[in-house]
Amino acid sequence: MRFISETSSDGVREQLFTLGDIPGVLWTPEEAVAPRPLVLIGHGGGQHKKAPDILARARRFVTGGGFAVVAVDVPAHGDRPKVEEYDRIASENQARVAAGEELAPLIAGFQALVARQTVPEWRAVLDAVQQLEHVGAGPVGYWGVSLGCGLGVPFVAAETRVRAAVLGLGGAPASAEVAARITVPVEFLMQWDDERVPRAQSLALFDALASAEKTLHASPGKHGELPASELESGLKFFARHLG
Amino acid sequence: MRFISETSSDGVREQLFTLGDIPGVLWTPEEAVAPRPLVLIGHGGGQHKKAPDILARARRFVTGGGFAVVAVDVPAHGDRPKVEEYDRIASENQARVAAGEELAPLIAGFQALVARQTVPEWRAVLDAVQQLEHVGAGPVGYWGVSLGCGLGVPFVAAETRVRAAVLGLGGAPASAEVAARITVPVEFLMQWDDERVPRAQSLALFDALASAEKTLHASPGKHGELPASELESGLKFFARHLG
Repeated sequence: MRFISETSSDGVREQLFTLGDIPGVLWTPEEAVAPRPLVLIGHGGGQHKKAPDILARARRFVTGGGFAVVAVDVPAHGDRPKVEEYDRIASENQARVAAGEELAPLIAGFQALVARQTVPEWRAVLDAVQQLEHVGAGPVGYWGVSLGCGLGVPFVAAETRVRAAVLGLGGAPASAEVAARITVPVEFLMQWDDERVPRAQSLALFDALASAEKTLHASPGKHGELPASELESGLKFFARHLG
Repeated sequence: MRFISETSSDGVREQLFTLGDIPGVLWTPEEAVAPRPLVLIGHGGGQHKKAPDILARARRFVTGGGFAVVAVDVPAHGDRPKVEEYDRIASENQARVAAGEELAPLIAGFQALVARQTVPEWRAVLDAVQQLEHVGAGPVGYWGVSLGCGLGVPFVAAETRVRAAVLGLGGAPASAEVAARITVPVEFLMQWDDERVPRAQSLALFDALASAEKTLHASPGKHGELPASELESGLKFFARHLG
């Protein structure tokens, strides 16, 4: 793990790093007491580790919960190079949708492929970050919607350090199978008028989670219109389960 | 409005009253500054104005939000006399369900009948309570699930003083029509394994609400198993909208 830069503002320390060829960012409270809870945030499709909503959420989790927060670029996103195979699949999928195929299963198939790479990457990120003196091996949470849900479901299912997860804006038969292996508390966010994820598939993914404690939060609006109040709700959720 | 008793404990003042033949209870913070937000709580079927979960919720709203909270007995509940017509309908409905009819529409029809009486009663309660020196004419919220939702939907639709409502554990085509007249922010609670309200009918009632700001909170468990975390969530919701 190699640190590239460090800045600090309004009580939040921000460190850019690389772990192998994975570029990431770590936010922690300035007064570092370890071990502390760590939340890994998975960004959405076409976004990156420092997209505005990721940054706002990370800073709020640090200042409101005292958590450490880490985010890394998904392959072919942010500061990472294009992946020829992904580009090819994306083009193929566009053509298949143009030819009348359903979008959701194609997205799910693609995300399952990317997850084969991101699950081990994110586990390595946890390993490295939890060894830092100002983080330590505290309880871990995961936050990710849309692509962050598609990649988050297999990550949360596989990684036993994750004790609570906020997921959502996703849903597909493929994800549902993996979701049935998730047993930690989940807050599941759904947009009632999501133009990308059919309502029934969101409900089916929530239904598939094996967690005894899970809550579906559905709000009116499209895929990109999560209400601001969910930021605070997520903070409370992690405070309850990682505190 | 006639006050019958007054007690005080842990910062919460509790006054029992009658308004005409309606028995009620008013909870306020001991340091009474008016006007303050007022939350009317509608109790569930077979319950009453001081059922344990109503009492816990009311006290939390007072101590956590500084709200005034009022609850009254629904006709044929708590300290109110039986209503022969209701008994007759309940017996008829039992027989109809035994003969194979669906329960949910029968419940909805019954609740619509009771609402014809409770909507004007609850409006009169608001009139009276908001004239009290230690309450005043602040913003009003409504909290009610199950029977409290069946009666709450027509109340919130009719009463323009209500600025935000927590509803849920209900759903039926009849309620949905009235729900389409509700435009204030709503937090809608649903139990994913509700044995009394079919899942599709809960979702349909949430869908029918015309509110631009509404959130569905669905949790695993049966009709009577609302998770404790919804108490805090409701408090935050009212603090946001009545504060």
